[in-house]
Amino acid sequence: MQSNKPRLPHLKDLTTDNITDNVNTVNALNHDNARFRYVLERLVTHLHDFSRETRLSTKEWMVGLQFLTTAGQVGINGPSEFHLLSSILGLSLLVDAMDHPKPATATEGTLLGPFHTDDAEHLQNGALISQDTAGEPLLVVCAIKDTSGKPISGVDVDIWETDSTGHYDVQYANRSGPDGRCVMTSDAEGKFWFKGIVPVSYPIPHDGPVGQLLKSLGRHPWRPAHMHFTFEKAGWDKLVTALFMRGDQYETSDVVFGVKDSLIVNLEEITDKSVDPETGDSLSSRYGVSSGTKLLRYDFVLVSEEQSLSLRNDQSREALERLGRKVRVVDGLPVPDVDSSRE
Amino acid sequence: MQSNKPRLPHLKDLTTDNITDNVNTVNALNHDNARFRYVLERLVTHLHDFSRETRLSTKEWMVGLQFLTTAGQVGINGPSEFHLLSSILGLSLLVDAMDHPKPATATEGTLLGPFHTDDAEHLQNGALISQDTAGEPLLVVCAIKDTSGKPISGVDVDIWETDSTGHYDVQYANRSGPDGRCVMTSDAEGKFWFKGIVPVSYPIPHDGPVGQLLKSLGRHPWRPAHMHFTFEKAGWDKLVTALFMRGDQYETSDVVFGVKDSLIVNLEEITDKSVDPETGDSLSSRYGVSSGTKLLRYDFVLVSEEQSLSLRNDQSREALERLGRKVRVVDGLPVPDVDSSRE
Repeated sequence: MQSNKPRLPHLKDLTTDNITDNVNTVNALNHDNARFRYVLERLVTHLHDFSRETRLSTKEWMVGLQFLTTAGQVGINGPSEFHLLSSILGLSLLVDAMDHPKPATATEGTLLGPFHTDDAEHLQNGALISQDTAGEPLLVVCAIKDTSGKPISGVDVDIWETDSTGHYDVQYANRSGPDGRCVMTSDAEGKFWFKGIVPVSYPIPHDGPVGQLLKSLGRHPWRPAHMHFTFEKAGWDKLVTALFMRGDQYETSDVVFGVKDSLIVNLEEITDKSVDPETGDSLSSRYGVSSGTKLLRYDFVLVSEEQSLSLRNDQSREALERLGRKVRVVDGLPVPDVDSSRE
Repeated sequence: MQSNKPRLPHLKDLTTDNITDNVNTVNALNHDNARFRYVLERLVTHLHDFSRETRLSTKEWMVGLQFLTTAGQVGINGPSEFHLLSSILGLSLLVDAMDHPKPATATEGTLLGPFHTDDAEHLQNGALISQDTAGEPLLVVCAIKDTSGKPISGVDVDIWETDSTGHYDVQYANRSGPDGRCVMTSDAEGKFWFKGIVPVSYPIPHDGPVGQLLKSLGRHPWRPAHMHFTFEKAGWDKLVTALFMRGDQYETSDVVFGVKDSLIVNLEEITDKSVDPETGDSLSSRYGVSSGTKLLRYDFVLVSEEQSLSLRNDQSREALERLGRKVRVVDGLPVPDVDSSRE
């Protein structure tokens, strides 16, 4: 009978010292995807090392399982608690930084957050993206360039922000359609502009287990005021970023660790005398906004897919070398070279 | 304004290299429980190291979040998917082994599993614990001793097994009360005995994300036939264990890694001539069972709480020393000594 299962290891009498190798062996037996095998092997190893290093007790382990179980049962209509957990533990920012590394000359990225949707309307330049009349009017005028300063046209820009109470449209149970969000395309000069409202700071949802964790740690749940952007065009590395309003009281304590100095902006105020620096046109007549409207200007700099891939590969190789493993690239992602990963 | 928050670090411009230290710093700022701080610090560090070593992509990270979210939404009436996940990744066994280390002279432990309940009836010696008439009758006769062979009376023994189809009572939506389980107390001679059915092998629930993971890994979901036991008495280390029927086809491939050689038993068959080796009484008349009934005999050996605690503390100290951290014990669990844990 045993001869029918020639590849099975002998999974008996496992101890704190040999269980990790055995679990990794059985997980790798019948799976052909080297990348999946590698990710799972590191996951199991870190999970076991975590419990070995903490000498995790049965009681603590049960508290952890209960935390995950409760987390799974809330947030079904809002962002997943697991997404929030990933954000407040810094994992979301870390993953973005690795997946989209930027050279110093490009606009920095930051985490996507859980409030992006795929149903935003495609609007024309100049459109109003927020129907919230209680918000403070804001004109946003941006350009998209490459690292040599050349404009990039035809970039799809996804934009989303909260309403004036600090809630995204998806947080309302009676949401009838997208609001406070849109997709635009940069024009021939790489420009896009729209009207929205001045972003406000807001707490992430904190009525579930993640909120309880923050509370028990004495951490506040607030994000500083910001507006989200993503940029996509074939041949260019996708940029996931956000702009932060300078002076926010949470600027240096963002609950999800997303603020970068280069992404903090000063808002201007449009007066009758404000002119476009390039054309000399009056801003209020050029963009159809009244005097007193706040203005956000920003130039985004994209890097090519090729340049980003090369940077990602270099960083991957370096990270795996630090682990003492020679690297192979499978589907664009690193896995250890089989010959050198077995000790 | 900043002076109101003197203890906050400056959480801005975080990178793949400095985010872990910063997250750990902010998590530790306002929390007085050294053990919780330590567990969280190791959790965040391993989570980040895992993603750094795999160069986890945004796409993979989203697959992971979706796995957890889906896992949270199933199994509400059965065992939590997180409990199953912990078991199939070997974490459950590992935690039990660390929390209840045994000297070589004691009965080995194994994982609790997700099917223990707190509502089992307290039955007298000799009782029938399974109402399943389709099962093969089994007489179980056990003794409980200390490591010197002295009987231990008054031990509360929790026992549970599946029915003949491989399902625990809690897996039936129409469960009206406990079946296939009971609590007994060892008598003055440290003995307990009961009638049940011969355990059968069974697959763990595998219709959710954990089942899909097993399938994608080419792993089967089966556990070899076994019967669960826990032993509790003040002054003695709680023993969580199970006995496995020799010859089961899954004996060396238990999906949750729980089999130990010392816990595998041979079943005997009672005949008219079978006698109690100590008293010489006929077994069938002594226990009121008919000829042909299967018999399981086992002597369990418990260790004192003091001995187990001492072993656990030694192993903890050793584990933390391997990490280069001097250990302090708080509420019976290790934390690094503050002075030596900061580099």
